[in-house]
Amino acid sequence: MTNRPIIAISTGDPSGIGPEISVKALKHKEIYDICRPFLIGDGAVFSDGSGSTPAFHPADRVEAMEFHPGIPDLLDLNLLDRRPPVGVVNEKSGNAAFQYVKRAIELAMDGQADATVTAPISKEAINLAGHKFAGHTEIYAHYTNTKDYAMLLAYGHFRVIHVSTHVPLRDACDLVKKDRVFQVIKMADEACKRLGIPNPRIAVAGLNPHAGENGMFGREETDEILPAVREAKQAGIHADGPIPADTVFSRLNGKMYDICVCMYHDQGHIPTKLLGFQWNETNRKWRSVSGVNITVGLPIIRVSVDHGTAFDIAGKGIASEESMVNAISCAAQFAKK
Amino acid sequence: MTNRPIIAISTGDPSGIGPEISVKALKHKEIYDICRPFLIGDGAVFSDGSGSTPAFHPADRVEAMEFHPGIPDLLDLNLLDRRPPVGVVNEKSGNAAFQYVKRAIELAMDGQADATVTAPISKEAINLAGHKFAGHTEIYAHYTNTKDYAMLLAYGHFRVIHVSTHVPLRDACDLVKKDRVFQVIKMADEACKRLGIPNPRIAVAGLNPHAGENGMFGREETDEILPAVREAKQAGIHADGPIPADTVFSRLNGKMYDICVCMYHDQGHIPTKLLGFQWNETNRKWRSVSGVNITVGLPIIRVSVDHGTAFDIAGKGIASEESMVNAISCAAQFAKK
Repeated sequence: MTNRPIIAISTGDPSGIGPEISVKALKHKEIYDICRPFLIGDGAVFSDGSGSTPAFHPADRVEAMEFHPGIPDLLDLNLLDRRPPVGVVNEKSGNAAFQYVKRAIELAMDGQADATVTAPISKEAINLAGHKFAGHTEIYAHYTNTKDYAMLLAYGHFRVIHVSTHVPLRDACDLVKKDRVFQVIKMADEACKRLGIPNPRIAVAGLNPHAGENGMFGREETDEILPAVREAKQAGIHADGPIPADTVFSRLNGKMYDICVCMYHDQGHIPTKLLGFQWNETNRKWRSVSGVNITVGLPIIRVSVDHGTAFDIAGKGIASEESMVNAISCAAQFAKK
Repeated sequence: MTNRPIIAISTGDPSGIGPEISVKALKHKEIYDICRPFLIGDGAVFSDGSGSTPAFHPADRVEAMEFHPGIPDLLDLNLLDRRPPVGVVNEKSGNAAFQYVKRAIELAMDGQADATVTAPISKEAINLAGHKFAGHTEIYAHYTNTKDYAMLLAYGHFRVIHVSTHVPLRDACDLVKKDRVFQVIKMADEACKRLGIPNPRIAVAGLNPHAGENGMFGREETDEILPAVREAKQAGIHADGPIPADTVFSRLNGKMYDICVCMYHDQGHIPTKLLGFQWNETNRKWRSVSGVNITVGLPIIRVSVDHGTAFDIAGKGIASEESMVNAISCAAQFAKK
């Protein structure tokens, strides 16, 4: 089956859990039924001398990959002599993580990969290494020359997409503008269709408490969001809103909608992570960390895990690969079309 | 058991589901084991001539109440000749709803009731009737002469308390000030102790995405929230934060904390209602609407349901009294001390 999409996986900050969850995910042999995945990273990180590192297949270019289920192919960028200190922000790891991402983007832009998946990076570390970006999304936007994009989080049927993401909340309020809201509604519609939903039902959240309660607690709903919803409806999109943010997610969770357009980062992240992340009180560990993050609006496909570098548990072999497995599957589904 | 607390229940907007859920709640006879509840409302609303209204016992003062399990005592304010139109905002209902609340407050301030519970009102309706308040909390603050108070939502062990509530999100950002945050942490501590938690563990959420990511996405965390948390710790309070809002609620739900101090209305309301409100896809109805709202910082006790007037299902006999039952139980627990 050579028509299975090729997925480039950047393995994230070498001091975090990225390398571990990337390798663990490719131990799931069924992943190879739907795609041909490979890792981008450093051999020195994966063969750390501890003897506990699983076997991998090094390759210097995509053509040399073997895609043997359970034995991860690694595009070795050879940036590091040895694994940098685990569990701490550092410049070496920041630079390496950045270069993995950049290479993944280049391979996808060049058509050598059909989609990309990203393991977590540390924004602090990449900035320490002189790469001034707020996160993955901004790196992708820059190197693919994309102006209009949006972050979509999905946990099963629970999907949210954001009008803005990594900006102070005050600035997020300023970014709630009719044109942008309409654009994100359109991107939500297209993304859902690509995920196999023929007639997506789109909820649009309000910005203010009670969606402004008819202007009593803010005017963005009447001045910006409602006109955007109207324009979407005229364009034949099944959009509904603005709906108060404190009940819209119960409706979304109850499958009244396929996706919710959120006005700021935490509005969408709070409910999605509450559902996807489960803390185990007894052993004081995350029981389940799942969900994926899709950057919508790029010329290439990018799916990410929806958690961070988890420096506190890095190197312990206890990180869950669940979100990474979901991210690879989701990228394969997007790449099919 | 005459030491059971007396609970005054204002029955809310007569055009909404308030009267229905109030009567239904008092049909739960076990409620009378922990308190002596009575309703404040209008006889005309409860005897609407439909024959479907359950029996109640009218009383013109608290001393005349019988507290017979299953037969609600009603303090009849006689404001309405007949039940106003059901399911629509109107001035008559707005005024009546406001007067019920005002009377409940007076009875509690006068020591005739040990606690108050409120059924939902329509902010639009009370404003239409000339009572210029943003909601119940503001009415209580005004008539009890209270300056510093906070809204606490609870759904089982999941508790949140808010630095601000019914203001535009832009204004909410301005209200994140060290003194106020510290004050709310203190109120959280006191409220939890009153609910029987001897050494409350308090999470304090950030305002901005990733709690500002060390100042990259906003400065409120470093300039206002962190100093407030430090002050709380110095005061012997077990406070922790600022914690990014998109993971703190998973921790709270996993019982790592007893309560979370939230920086704005939706930050606390989104996760609590996502857990407490469940939409049934099949019959297109709310399956479960539970959770309670406690106003902290008042000289009297006030607990409320955490849902609205639900005009769309008013008068149909299908509203769930679950949240009202929880609210009455919670008020009884608070009043014990």
